Amino acid sequence: MQETITSTQNTRIKQVLLLQQKSQERRRSGLFVLEGQRELERAARHGFRLHTLFVCPEIAGSDYRGPQSGMPYEVVEVSPQVYARMAYREGTEGAIAILYQKTLEPSDLTWQGAPLFVVLEGVEKPGNVGAILRSADAADVTAVLICDEQCDLYNPNLLRASLGSAFTVPTVACTGEACIDFLKRNRVRILTAQLQDSNLYYDTDMTQPTAIVMGTEATGLTYAWREAADAHIRIPMLGAMDSLNVSVSAAILMFEAVRQRSQNIKQKN
Amino acid sequence: MQETITSTQNTRIKQVLLLQQKSQERRRSGLFVLEGQRELERAARHGFRLHTLFVCPEIAGSDYRGPQSGMPYEVVEVSPQVYARMAYREGTEGAIAILYQKTLEPSDLTWQGAPLFVVLEGVEKPGNVGAILRSADAADVTAVLICDEQCDLYNPNLLRASLGSAFTVPTVACTGEACIDFLKRNRVRILTAQLQDSNLYYDTDMTQPTAIVMGTEATGLTYAWREAADAHIRIPMLGAMDSLNVSVSAAILMFEAVRQRSQNIKQKN
Repeated sequence: MQETITSTQNTRIKQVLLLQQKSQERRRSGLFVLEGQRELERAARHGFRLHTLFVCPEIAGSDYRGPQSGMPYEVVEVSPQVYARMAYREGTEGAIAILYQKTLEPSDLTWQGAPLFVVLEGVEKPGNVGAILRSADAADVTAVLICDEQCDLYNPNLLRASLGSAFTVPTVACTGEACIDFLKRNRVRILTAQLQDSNLYYDTDMTQPTAIVMGTEATGLTYAWREAADAHIRIPMLGAMDSLNVSVSAAILMFEAVRQRSQNIKQKN
Repeated sequence: MQETITSTQNTRIKQVLLLQQKSQERRRSGLFVLEGQRELERAARHGFRLHTLFVCPEIAGSDYRGPQSGMPYEVVEVSPQVYARMAYREGTEGAIAILYQKTLEPSDLTWQGAPLFVVLEGVEKPGNVGAILRSADAADVTAVLICDEQCDLYNPNLLRASLGSAFTVPTVACTGEACIDFLKRNRVRILTAQLQDSNLYYDTDMTQPTAIVMGTEATGLTYAWREAADAHIRIPMLGAMDSLNVSVSAAILMFEAVRQRSQNIKQKN
């Protein structure tokens, strides 16, 4: 163990801040920052490799040793002042780390039975993507595919909103073209969420290999997706509003697939 | 029209800021603040009465006259600097108003057919309550009942997250006791969302008069509600996470009622 870092001007502390604040720096380095003992434990358990762990013993407790990991990583102690400067949230238990990103391609995905994919096109808000990942974990979605080059899967707001499901749900960033190609080759039915020319979602079969494709609330899906669709589905809007929050819509659609698949199993038994 | 207010130290501007910031001031005065031309139009259309409208002609356009309303209200012009000080968001179109609150009791509620209620107990985050109201509007919920004396229905974060559905969905704040009494007297089936001793939500009938009762993510529902329940329901958690966001859970449950009721109508025809 080296000596405790007590200055926020320390090069390594500056690197943490830069990785938190700059998407470009995350892209360049292939690293990202995560805080919280529980979150770090979950990331390590799902195969994310730690680069450096920063521990504040005054907050973490002097017996905290960091997450279990098959791969070694460096541990650095920091003072409470330095920790406070790095931590996004309160109550993150005195542990913050730099980790290596994992990059998945569509071809890396595997599944058993009928897969259920969620595809997001141009969903900009990291908080919404994080919330969708949290629901996707609960619905046991095979993978979330994000067709937006701008989306940074390691954005701190995304990681926070996902509550750790960014590590448990296989997540792929790729172009729309590559995604459509992947789904077609695997005979996955493409259901696009859109208001026009669509059927009610609960009248649409989701028990077969299925991809639920969501666009932005503002502009909807691009022509390529509408064209590629096997069916267009909509959630009925029975009140005065004309849309739902995209993470709410995604959850309603994913859990309809869960419901249909559970009823299907019942009928077979 | 009086002369334009150009100072943020003006008494009326200070009143707006106080109403935005202090729940206590809203409670004391029975007033609240709302911004945005579209939002104000919607509130007025749903019977909310304006007290004072503050218009910034440089932003709103010189021909903006404020929302249609059956009741007269005062219009005051403000400078762009003063407007910027009052506005929470960008792009709210140069219109911000003080309005009178509306207070509903359970006994004020009316409905046709089988009502669908959503009951929230101790859901603290105003953003979550606002998000639930938005979904409740889309699902055509009869009313949302909030059993929490601390909840302030006119909190700016709640109003923003609701995107105007705080005005379209009848919303009642009352004690848990009054709420249970109201539901029992009207023979409404009480379904409490809880993980223990519960059935899967999609195996539970929601076509009869139904109340979906949600607690906090952290502590769940109090004993009084579990006792009052006709059935306990849960959303299956198929992944690593142990809970969903409360606004996501609420939407999944509300739209299951929508689905079941739509299938019911189909079967009858």
